[in-house]
Amino acid sequence: MNILSLFGKRGQSASVAKNRLQILLAHERAADGSDAVLISNLREDILAVVAKRIAIDPDSVRLEMDRSGDVTTLGIDIELPPTARAS
Amino acid sequence: MNILSLFGKRGQSASVAKNRLQILLAHERAADGSDAVLISNLREDILAVVAKRIAIDPDSVRLEMDRSGDVTTLGIDIELPPTARAS
Repeated sequence: MNILSLFGKRGQSASVAKNRLQILLAHERAADGSDAVLISNLREDILAVVAKRIAIDPDSVRLEMDRSGDVTTLGIDIELPPTARAS
Repeated sequence: MNILSLFGKRGQSASVAKNRLQILLAHERAADGSDAVLISNLREDILAVVAKRIAIDPDSVRLEMDRSGDVTTLGIDIELPPTARAS
């Protein structure tokens, strides 16, 4: 699974990204696994700050973690209802 | 400028991503510019939560915003000193 696929291709139609907030984190993969802990902690922190700004439905949040190669990546894909945009 | 270039290509050597935390935000581009406000607010929030977990030097943070097409993207590239990793 390629985490970058969350973001689609640059040339795709707007509908792909519409009403979505997508966040991708990438971090060097540590031998002791501490990167996974860091990414996991950041995931919780970032979801919390996003939730402060946008009314998000937890069911609309899709997470994908990928640890291939030397980098751990976490993709956060949040579907936003049209009325959820923060002022 | 393609913001995705911040993340390099998947096949690149580990040195590219080493000692870095990279965060990419993508959001539908709103006609009224409110997406830029949201992204800007999230940037501040996310940098704050990252700073709580990792000792980051503000000078080591590189930001790139791109508003091409229908999506606003913000790339946050943080160089981490080797000793900065959170436990």
